Amino acid sequence: MMSPKESVKIIFQPSGRRGEVEKGISIIEAARRIGADIEALCGEKGVCGKCKVRIEEGVFEKYGIRSRHDHVSEWQEEEEKFIESQEREDGYRLGCCTKITGDLLVFVPEESRAGKQVVSKAARDIPISRDPAVKLYYVEVSAPNIQDPTADFERVLGYIKQQYGLQDLRIDYYALRDLPGCLREGKWKVTAAIWMDKEIIRITPGRVQDYYGLAIDIGTTTVAAYVCNMVTMEVVDTVSMMNPQCKYGEDVMSRITYHMSNEDGLARMRRDIIDGLNSLVAQACRESLSSSGESHQIPLEPQDILDVTIVGNTVMHHILLGINPEFVGLSPFPPVIHKGLDIKARDLGIGINPSAFVHVLPIEAGFVGADNVGVLLAEGPHKKEEVQLIIDIGTNGELVLGNREKLISSSCATGPALEGAQLAFGMRAAPGAIERITIDPVTHETDYKVIGRDAWKSYSKPEEMQTKGICGSGILDVLAELYCAGIVLKSGRFNPEQKSKRFRKNPNNDQPEFVIAWAEETSIGKDVVVTQKDVRQIQLAKGALYCGCKLMMRRLGVDRVDKVKIAGAFGTHVDREKALIMGLFPDCETEKIISVGNAAGDGARAALLDRAKREEANWVARNVEYLELTLEQDFQQEFMQAMHIPHMKDTFPHLVGLVPDDILNQK
Amino acid sequence: MMSPKESVKIIFQPSGRRGEVEKGISIIEAARRIGADIEALCGEKGVCGKCKVRIEEGVFEKYGIRSRHDHVSEWQEEEEKFIESQEREDGYRLGCCTKITGDLLVFVPEESRAGKQVVSKAARDIPISRDPAVKLYYVEVSAPNIQDPTADFERVLGYIKQQYGLQDLRIDYYALRDLPGCLREGKWKVTAAIWMDKEIIRITPGRVQDYYGLAIDIGTTTVAAYVCNMVTMEVVDTVSMMNPQCKYGEDVMSRITYHMSNEDGLARMRRDIIDGLNSLVAQACRESLSSSGESHQIPLEPQDILDVTIVGNTVMHHILLGINPEFVGLSPFPPVIHKGLDIKARDLGIGINPSAFVHVLPIEAGFVGADNVGVLLAEGPHKKEEVQLIIDIGTNGELVLGNREKLISSSCATGPALEGAQLAFGMRAAPGAIERITIDPVTHETDYKVIGRDAWKSYSKPEEMQTKGICGSGILDVLAELYCAGIVLKSGRFNPEQKSKRFRKNPNNDQPEFVIAWAEETSIGKDVVVTQKDVRQIQLAKGALYCGCKLMMRRLGVDRVDKVKIAGAFGTHVDREKALIMGLFPDCETEKIISVGNAAGDGARAALLDRAKREEANWVARNVEYLELTLEQDFQQEFMQAMHIPHMKDTFPHLVGLVPDDILNQK
Repeated sequence: MMSPKESVKIIFQPSGRRGEVEKGISIIEAARRIGADIEALCGEKGVCGKCKVRIEEGVFEKYGIRSRHDHVSEWQEEEEKFIESQEREDGYRLGCCTKITGDLLVFVPEESRAGKQVVSKAARDIPISRDPAVKLYYVEVSAPNIQDPTADFERVLGYIKQQYGLQDLRIDYYALRDLPGCLREGKWKVTAAIWMDKEIIRITPGRVQDYYGLAIDIGTTTVAAYVCNMVTMEVVDTVSMMNPQCKYGEDVMSRITYHMSNEDGLARMRRDIIDGLNSLVAQACRESLSSSGESHQIPLEPQDILDVTIVGNTVMHHILLGINPEFVGLSPFPPVIHKGLDIKARDLGIGINPSAFVHVLPIEAGFVGADNVGVLLAEGPHKKEEVQLIIDIGTNGELVLGNREKLISSSCATGPALEGAQLAFGMRAAPGAIERITIDPVTHETDYKVIGRDAWKSYSKPEEMQTKGICGSGILDVLAELYCAGIVLKSGRFNPEQKSKRFRKNPNNDQPEFVIAWAEETSIGKDVVVTQKDVRQIQLAKGALYCGCKLMMRRLGVDRVDKVKIAGAFGTHVDREKALIMGLFPDCETEKIISVGNAAGDGARAALLDRAKREEANWVARNVEYLELTLEQDFQQEFMQAMHIPHMKDTFPHLVGLVPDDILNQK
Repeated sequence: MMSPKESVKIIFQPSGRRGEVEKGISIIEAARRIGADIEALCGEKGVCGKCKVRIEEGVFEKYGIRSRHDHVSEWQEEEEKFIESQEREDGYRLGCCTKITGDLLVFVPEESRAGKQVVSKAARDIPISRDPAVKLYYVEVSAPNIQDPTADFERVLGYIKQQYGLQDLRIDYYALRDLPGCLREGKWKVTAAIWMDKEIIRITPGRVQDYYGLAIDIGTTTVAAYVCNMVTMEVVDTVSMMNPQCKYGEDVMSRITYHMSNEDGLARMRRDIIDGLNSLVAQACRESLSSSGESHQIPLEPQDILDVTIVGNTVMHHILLGINPEFVGLSPFPPVIHKGLDIKARDLGIGINPSAFVHVLPIEAGFVGADNVGVLLAEGPHKKEEVQLIIDIGTNGELVLGNREKLISSSCATGPALEGAQLAFGMRAAPGAIERITIDPVTHETDYKVIGRDAWKSYSKPEEMQTKGICGSGILDVLAELYCAGIVLKSGRFNPEQKSKRFRKNPNNDQPEFVIAWAEETSIGKDVVVTQKDVRQIQLAKGALYCGCKLMMRRLGVDRVDKVKIAGAFGTHVDREKALIMGLFPDCETEKIISVGNAAGDGARAALLDRAKREEANWVARNVEYLELTLEQDFQQEFMQAMHIPHMKDTFPHLVGLVPDDILNQK
């Protein structure tokens, strides 16, 4: 007689996908059923080694599980080939060889993820002057002789002064060590890399042409790095990854909490982001090697990376630097430092040229960090006459409003819903994610498009879709369509009177949900739905955003803005009209809403290529007035109002026609 | 039938004492027989643990031995108590428990040495203005509130600017990490340590009064550190040790050779000196703890050491910094850098406050290093009208001649003989070392005084003397007395016609030698002698010195000097008249010869307490003209002449009477 199958809980990080699976199936099989993305090129034969995952040990209270290295089947011989002994100690296993015997939290490293993230943090073409902090100077010096036995350093300095007029230079201690060898190897011809006309940070034999820099944007969820050729200014590679700190919590407050409740919490999170940055550096160097033969003949070495700029919100900034972020989370939310910082790469532990400086951009306030300074550098509202509203939607929403006369900023807790997180079927912008959708107002049939497949569902066979979930930009489409089709009411509640076949109550929790994709269209073997809770999450996010914009406009004394700029991955994918319908931000003509991509990253890039931007950053960080929304007297009331969808038609006259009259007029 | 006893070779480092001993005796016993100094408080019962030594593994070609960890008896249980497992792996043993079974090179750590070095590098009272690079600033700031949520750093900066006028300060990355905690712990009252009015290097809660600095002199043989209270300017402790690099060779050239013939030679020597400096720091902190209750109540912590200055010759400087010293040893002997350097303590690996800077003083030339710059800072010949000749006798002799109009410097290869090294019974200035001697010209009987005992031999019983060897200052006494007694001729050869009972030929190598102390007067159980080779060594040293002085005077165009200053331990102990008799330096009235002690270290201390001295050091290092003696056309001839003792009586008219006429007039 067969006993009923025992089930265990499994969670995959960083995607957060979780569920119960029967004991004894492989990790790969569990990932497939739950919809977590693990690479499995060889079809689980244990020969490709692509499905390497790490079993985390510990009690994860948030999920109510205890995960242990021995909650899996025994170590297999074929794993030896792909997993080194240190990795094995750290809990690494091959997903295909490893059967689940107990509750598990499994971390899927970037390289093992099947659906590599679609980089929406691509670099834009913004005008940047070239005046980098680090420049190269080539000199040919005379060899020492009895008449002139001057030391190597002063010898090089003399020629640099004579040829380039630079004086009073110092030299980094590591670069100094390389000096005598390089001078002789280069037969008294060397190239000096000089930082800010002040310090020699590298000496190389002979004439060197190219060198590289990194502009890094550390988001709460995603980390992106642009590898720039510092001579041509072109972005030679863009690399990105999930922020490895995601396992400690989705938003900045949960990171602060993790620090406060774990003695080594700050050190662990710091180590994770530093390790993460180092893996990005390694990836960038690997990838630029493969493109050799084209623009650069010499493979990119970490040693050739001579400058780095970093932006990130205040909490990411503090954790990166190992600074206690606790007080950022407590009123009056003071950061530890505003000013931009120059820190030696070796002090930070970043594996580029150890003598290079890492420039961390300044911070405006506790909840408006260096990422927002980056946005300001890229967009320059402080230099324009027109009144701009700049919205950067990440895990938190950061808002800037104003022009060259005055700029104010604020921050609102949008939560991660608009990034696709914490929704029943939310996911990153990766292949299989629904990014566009329409819902027929009569039949309630859905048509949609997933990332990685050009053909919409209506032009495909169901099994061709391989749908996995809904990404951040898709979620707003879904909600707008649900609303326009009368499935969801103004209040955000599912219309209880509808008879749609796709509408149902979840038998487990009795919650209403709407099926976007049937199981047969998915790669995860179950229906992809939007739940009532999902709708609430989005309402909270958009309410926070709208309310923030409105209070800021009141503070600045304007009743409309000349331009709305949406930064971040969300801005790139969002349907502007649907955003207006949903009331994400104040009324504005559609053509005045523009997406500015990863403006924070662009700002980091501007500061990398043009040193004047670093001065500008310090100025702007101290001259933006921060508005703490929650202290505004009618904040609660405004926020409640802003939760409803949509606003009245007299507020958005130009939207009439987009939304059916009966819907628009419902009370 | 007993077999004849087998013998093995043993060498003790850093003293260099060596000999053959019978197999099977303990290391302590061997040390006693050979005259190496190992502490043995408990009388070899294995209970005090004071006789810890390290067995070095390796082939030591210079001595023709192969030393191995297993060339000793088995590990004993009593050793466990005193030797940790890591130390055990490194070859540490207790000298009393360990029997010798094969050739050995044994390193005796400073703490295990019975005769702790008599610190002749004591600090002198020289006038120094107080204007240190690092100063403390106390501020009371307001707590952040909703109206003023300014960041911690800018908050502190505002108050520092307001109260002390300091602007545009940056903050060390490590200090920044401490800032939020210190501000809150100190209830918004903190003390900032600021380097050069530029960078905050430490934040401490509340008001802090005292802080400390180290002035370090890294000699080829000896390392000394002065611990200064940076407020009172007093030297609270002086610590010193053998340079741990001595095991790689006695002089700078052998260190360079070790680097060139060993791939990791530079790294090893660097590690050794850094470890050595760290042990000095630890010692200083331990010792200042024991004096608490007196001048400073709070024990000195490495964290409280906020500034360091270092002097040393060019090769010591380069090795310390991990800079290739190879080219310093090759004509035209260029150093890698002249200029003084400021390097973070953490980069250098020195275990003081990691944010503190270590200031390494500038270098004049390949063989006139930062130690000589220290001497110049302390003595200031470049500020005086009188023509000074400053002689710093270490393992190399460094010479400076001139006044405020012009200064020239040079270096001469005196070898380590004047420091007591490489002589048959030479030793450090430690208890048991002969430091003064007289020889009766008729009976050839000797009378002498050893360090650590006030009574001369003639007032003591033989067994009370416990003589071990001859130190650097004693050796010149010995030679002058041998000469004045007619035992040694002008040429330096032993007079073959003498009938002294103390004169003999060594049966092993047929070399002439003179017995200074009979075995019964010693603690090492054998006669302490001066050999013909010893006399030659001293002749070479004094010839190099005299010849250098003479050529420099010629270059400067002076025929006499107004003052002769002798720096270094040698200068402290030397009998000035005997130095003149021996022709160590040009004729000068005895009262114009003064000892200036460890002037290099004093200069380091001046630069520690007065930042203006660092500027002065850079100026002086570039404005002293270096004279390469070996390139002077008649160098060889001058050198040969200078080897003879003594010079003619018409050269030293005032010495007539000190030396018997028949001796003075011999051809």
